[in-house]
Amino acid sequence: MNFVINRDLFLSNLNDVSKAMSNKPQQPVAAGIKIDVKEDSISLLATNSEIAIQAIIPITAQLSIESTGTVVLPGKYLLDIVKKSEAKDIKVTKFETNVVKIIAGRSEVTMNTLDVEAFPIVNLDRNGVELSIDVLNLKQIIKKTAFAAGNQDEQLVLTGVNAVTNGNKLEVVATDRYRLAKKHIIFPNELEKISVIFPSKSLDDLNKILDDSEDIVNINISSAKAVFTFKNITFRTRLIKGAFPNTDAIIPHDFITKIKFNKADLMATIDRASLFVAQDATSIIKLALNKDGNVLISSVNNEIGSVEEIIKPISCSDIIPFQTAFSYRYLLDSIKALDSNEIIISFTGEIKPFVLTGEYDINYIQLIVPVRA
Amino acid sequence: MNFVINRDLFLSNLNDVSKAMSNKPQQPVAAGIKIDVKEDSISLLATNSEIAIQAIIPITAQLSIESTGTVVLPGKYLLDIVKKSEAKDIKVTKFETNVVKIIAGRSEVTMNTLDVEAFPIVNLDRNGVELSIDVLNLKQIIKKTAFAAGNQDEQLVLTGVNAVTNGNKLEVVATDRYRLAKKHIIFPNELEKISVIFPSKSLDDLNKILDDSEDIVNINISSAKAVFTFKNITFRTRLIKGAFPNTDAIIPHDFITKIKFNKADLMATIDRASLFVAQDATSIIKLALNKDGNVLISSVNNEIGSVEEIIKPISCSDIIPFQTAFSYRYLLDSIKALDSNEIIISFTGEIKPFVLTGEYDINYIQLIVPVRA
Repeated sequence: MNFVINRDLFLSNLNDVSKAMSNKPQQPVAAGIKIDVKEDSISLLATNSEIAIQAIIPITAQLSIESTGTVVLPGKYLLDIVKKSEAKDIKVTKFETNVVKIIAGRSEVTMNTLDVEAFPIVNLDRNGVELSIDVLNLKQIIKKTAFAAGNQDEQLVLTGVNAVTNGNKLEVVATDRYRLAKKHIIFPNELEKISVIFPSKSLDDLNKILDDSEDIVNINISSAKAVFTFKNITFRTRLIKGAFPNTDAIIPHDFITKIKFNKADLMATIDRASLFVAQDATSIIKLALNKDGNVLISSVNNEIGSVEEIIKPISCSDIIPFQTAFSYRYLLDSIKALDSNEIIISFTGEIKPFVLTGEYDINYIQLIVPVRA
Repeated sequence: MNFVINRDLFLSNLNDVSKAMSNKPQQPVAAGIKIDVKEDSISLLATNSEIAIQAIIPITAQLSIESTGTVVLPGKYLLDIVKKSEAKDIKVTKFETNVVKIIAGRSEVTMNTLDVEAFPIVNLDRNGVELSIDVLNLKQIIKKTAFAAGNQDEQLVLTGVNAVTNGNKLEVVATDRYRLAKKHIIFPNELEKISVIFPSKSLDDLNKILDDSEDIVNINISSAKAVFTFKNITFRTRLIKGAFPNTDAIIPHDFITKIKFNKADLMATIDRASLFVAQDATSIIKLALNKDGNVLISSVNNEIGSVEEIIKPISCSDIIPFQTAFSYRYLLDSIKALDSNEIIISFTGEIKPFVLTGEYDINYIQLIVPVRA
């Protein structure tokens, strides 16, 4: 095994693939990147229990191959070497049975290989139903839904993101029971029938390696796995089995009032009003609509004290004084997922779910369930 | 107690004083900032077991005082409130016996006070020997010496930085036995006799609040404490008692070779050559002078592999092939403390201390003791 590759090309592909390396591997080989050198291309592959990422780099002026072979190298160190190198090209050679030499400029690195036989077998077959979507829409869907899934829910399906096609509509939803985020996209064409639950963590990982191009991502969905392909990358995730709850019924349609806020203003207000509470999902803040049409946001920490902050909304459909309490973190996550400068919170009552939407966040709705405080 | 203060003025003074708050206080009051409102000024004070910092802000257009009094508030939260506020002015009022109200723009914060009686008594008396030095020189001294002190040495004096005056010379030195950094400054005037050991951590804290102005810092040194005053700030540290070892004898004067490096080049080389070793003081790298006048820097991790990197020095006084091994971290710290673009390492032998100097680092010498590898 012997190849010479342009440093920048190698780095960007290693960066992509490394997202699938295990951080805390049970075996060292799980933290490895498998390099498979064929006559006309090299393949880089990493995998953990949830996902696998493969990059295939064909021979070009930036890659020359002298001899073929397969090795597994510790991914973190391989990435570090290439990242810190100032050389234009990097030469990788199998030196002895279990040793690889990497020559980059004035650096000569000798690296012990990991056991190729122990590297997991990764099935990247595309033998399911196909769906194509452009990168920008896919990134939007992930950003706007995945955060609302449960972290370690007893109900496994709630740690996932449900995607369902119906005619020319793709509807994507995530919920942990206390919040919900739902987005749909209308396609110009009829879609194949799909109903699938992606692990939300896998979608977050996928999002990290999707760039901002207008490329198309092909998604191939079979019973236990989904395979995403774009550019020279193949990304595979396992799927979650089970029935996702029907969430249509819980989204309210009748509201006591709709309040429109400036997004930056609301973010800064919440930031200050939560000063004394812990920065996690269990911390509660209160929102009250006053008789004068202003909104009071407040929180209390019995030990330290309390913060009250007045915010003047842009508009308020009905001035009906009421008060509600909810997770500080959930409101902040929700606002961050909205891209509009003006956001609308629609209330149904003091302890009933409220709905968040944004003027320019098309086909997108979020819901937060208040708590009793 | 009732005062109104400009937000930026309050923030910069709270920031300075907060460096003396305890991070992990045994009592809540130790994490507090004491605010003492007099008729013509307010004083902010924080202290931990090592240092105390006081800021005195006189009445100006930016501070008006309505009534006097003293409170202790949780420092971290007070700082956060002022930091996050967008208001121009901040009003602080004692509301009930143990409650303070802070009004900043549309925010109204109610804060429980801490026990004033439990706040430590801080002696800031200036009843010792005086030394005056400009901020830039003081910052240089601290940056170039404090890092070389021991962390938790059995010999307490070695966790400190020794400052000694002799005629018009101030000599400052720190060592943990395995490295040493020594700087002296020549004053235009005769200095009072001083021999004192500052805790190195205290000097690091002091450095954080010294700005880049050309102000003068007055240092008042008595038997158990030193009091630094500059601008409206008073900084007090305890001193370490004991006899600091005489370090003159261990600095070598005869060298087998002197090698001059480009600083950035050497830093990048060490960075790459240490890729496989842990980023701490116990990690060893090797340096060898080759027959061709090039220098080979290398490290080995038995599990992962090894890195060898060639660096071409700017010049080398004598090409005598030799090899030495030392702490990777110590070399890096030492290079960082040098401000010159070109640095000179002077070797005395394979396992004898070597000396680091910089072309533009006047009156400054560092020494590192190699290890057997």
